[in-house]
Amino acid sequence: MLNTTHLYREIHQQPQVIENLLQQEHAQAQALANQIRQRNITHVVIAARGTSDNAARYANYVLGARNGIIVSLATPSLFSIYRQPPILKNALVLGISQSGKSPDIVSVVAEGRRQGALTAAITNFSDSDLAQEADFVLNLQAGLEQSVAATKTYTSELAAIALLSCCLAQEDQAMSALQKMPQLVNETLQINQALPQLTERYRYMEQCVVIGRGFNYATAFELALKLKELTYTMVEPYSSADFLHGPLALIDQGFPVIVVAPSGQMHSEMEAFLVPLMERRAELIVISDSGTLLAQAQTPLQLPSDIPEWLSPVASIVPGQLFAMHLAATRGYSVDQPRGLNKVTETL
Amino acid sequence: MLNTTHLYREIHQQPQVIENLLQQEHAQAQALANQIRQRNITHVVIAARGTSDNAARYANYVLGARNGIIVSLATPSLFSIYRQPPILKNALVLGISQSGKSPDIVSVVAEGRRQGALTAAITNFSDSDLAQEADFVLNLQAGLEQSVAATKTYTSELAAIALLSCCLAQEDQAMSALQKMPQLVNETLQINQALPQLTERYRYMEQCVVIGRGFNYATAFELALKLKELTYTMVEPYSSADFLHGPLALIDQGFPVIVVAPSGQMHSEMEAFLVPLMERRAELIVISDSGTLLAQAQTPLQLPSDIPEWLSPVASIVPGQLFAMHLAATRGYSVDQPRGLNKVTETL
Repeated sequence: MLNTTHLYREIHQQPQVIENLLQQEHAQAQALANQIRQRNITHVVIAARGTSDNAARYANYVLGARNGIIVSLATPSLFSIYRQPPILKNALVLGISQSGKSPDIVSVVAEGRRQGALTAAITNFSDSDLAQEADFVLNLQAGLEQSVAATKTYTSELAAIALLSCCLAQEDQAMSALQKMPQLVNETLQINQALPQLTERYRYMEQCVVIGRGFNYATAFELALKLKELTYTMVEPYSSADFLHGPLALIDQGFPVIVVAPSGQMHSEMEAFLVPLMERRAELIVISDSGTLLAQAQTPLQLPSDIPEWLSPVASIVPGQLFAMHLAATRGYSVDQPRGLNKVTETL
Repeated sequence: MLNTTHLYREIHQQPQVIENLLQQEHAQAQALANQIRQRNITHVVIAARGTSDNAARYANYVLGARNGIIVSLATPSLFSIYRQPPILKNALVLGISQSGKSPDIVSVVAEGRRQGALTAAITNFSDSDLAQEADFVLNLQAGLEQSVAATKTYTSELAAIALLSCCLAQEDQAMSALQKMPQLVNETLQINQALPQLTERYRYMEQCVVIGRGFNYATAFELALKLKELTYTMVEPYSSADFLHGPLALIDQGFPVIVVAPSGQMHSEMEAFLVPLMERRAELIVISDSGTLLAQAQTPLQLPSDIPEWLSPVASIVPGQLFAMHLAATRGYSVDQPRGLNKVTETL
């Protein structure tokens, strides 16, 4: 029955959506990259909420590590409520929103335009209010997303950011790695088969934390949001470093910790992070391609190998999306219409 | 017995610490402000973790709304693990750390210095590694903080940021409002008497959320951190706007929600936010000076009136610190030495 839901279908459309995006938005991404270089822009201010804000967290690392660009996550209330916008004119002001409708996000990009900043939008609706305020629009090419919990628009937002990064860096190797992501996301989806049984164990889990760091800091936040929206579990995301500055006190025997830890430069950091968790006998759910890390887990969720770390978030969220969906189903919840939520949330 | 603990004493030292800071660091704050203006700096990159990161959230709003400066919260792993620091040379790079010891925070300020950026530190130790990398050091003047849970260094960090903002703006009215804060924090501390009884109700609370927005977004995060460190409750902080983009699904009857909502421009926003919570019959703990909002709460925690909204975080965290301390005591936990934590956390 689950495979007739919007959520199931949209999760499985992700390889195709990413492929569409990479083909159809390349020219626009290159045009935006050219403007960024021409204006010597080294600072991007991003306005986004919810799932799109998690894509912004990814941008923070990708544009920083690969393009030397520093990212600020805008505080929309400075624009919409306090009406005291900061000085934006030397930055790129980027709005990310599936619907392109939330007034607070639109107001940040509109203010950027008013100040003469370069503006851009990443959205699924090229005729939205947000798109109309932007000099450049990357369309998510996701088709209509009908499930309240965003999935295909999230991975498409990540792919759009990665595409922009490639266009800025002009590295052929990076671009061909990005073009392999539809196939790698497709491979990741194979884990769907095992999840109905694996999620049984967490039927009565009331709380957990999700840990990711670096590029996958975004994945931790997005996985936590999916679990909250779909399963009403109390879930908090952390970077492994922040977690050691206080919240580690939460962990005692059996406390569930989801660790997102693909191979790469963050691997040894995440390996060290597991030590205090194991000492406290936490319950570990590990999303990784690393045998060492997966072997520590009560519930290992395996990723395909050979994904460059900077692109891994496009795939590493997929087991999390499936985990949240199947856990919701195990609990008898509607996966397409979580209680109390609407698809478009308009906040000031 | 509680009043013989370090935590109790340090919470009650806050008025004096803030007064010391405002007197002794004014000249240094003015010198830093002069440099910022002289170099036409409109962008501050802040590196901080844990409690100090919550002070950085406050800086995001204060420097934005009052000084037109946009703030980026640095992602230390770009510096310390990926070794791909972004371009910082046009920014002020500011490290905030009680101990001044965490290598990841030090590495961000050191990189700023290497690139020729203006650098500054806010720390309790003027001879720390962090201070040594900084062109300007604001000392927290807090004396030794012995409780693992930071309290007086947090409010001193907020006061240091407010002081810098005043020096940048050169408004006498703002500076005299800031100078009233020691007295107002002292008044806020009077609520201590009521809390042993008020916290009884939450003896078995296992989870809650804390909501704040705008200037008090920082307060929501810091209150959540104190509750986690001291009471091992699963607590998640949110802006009211982000909360409506998904996590609202968590709330059903009796779910505890702590709302930080002092008077000011955010008041009507917070008033509207309470409506869906009341519809779902959430349990409300409200920290405010507004009679309207306090009247909606099962547990009202009253703030002194007449605090300007931008300074309210210096006082509005105090009922939260006391609430967390008394709840820990009600549960029989050590308030000075939470399980599994050390005072100085060194992360890469």
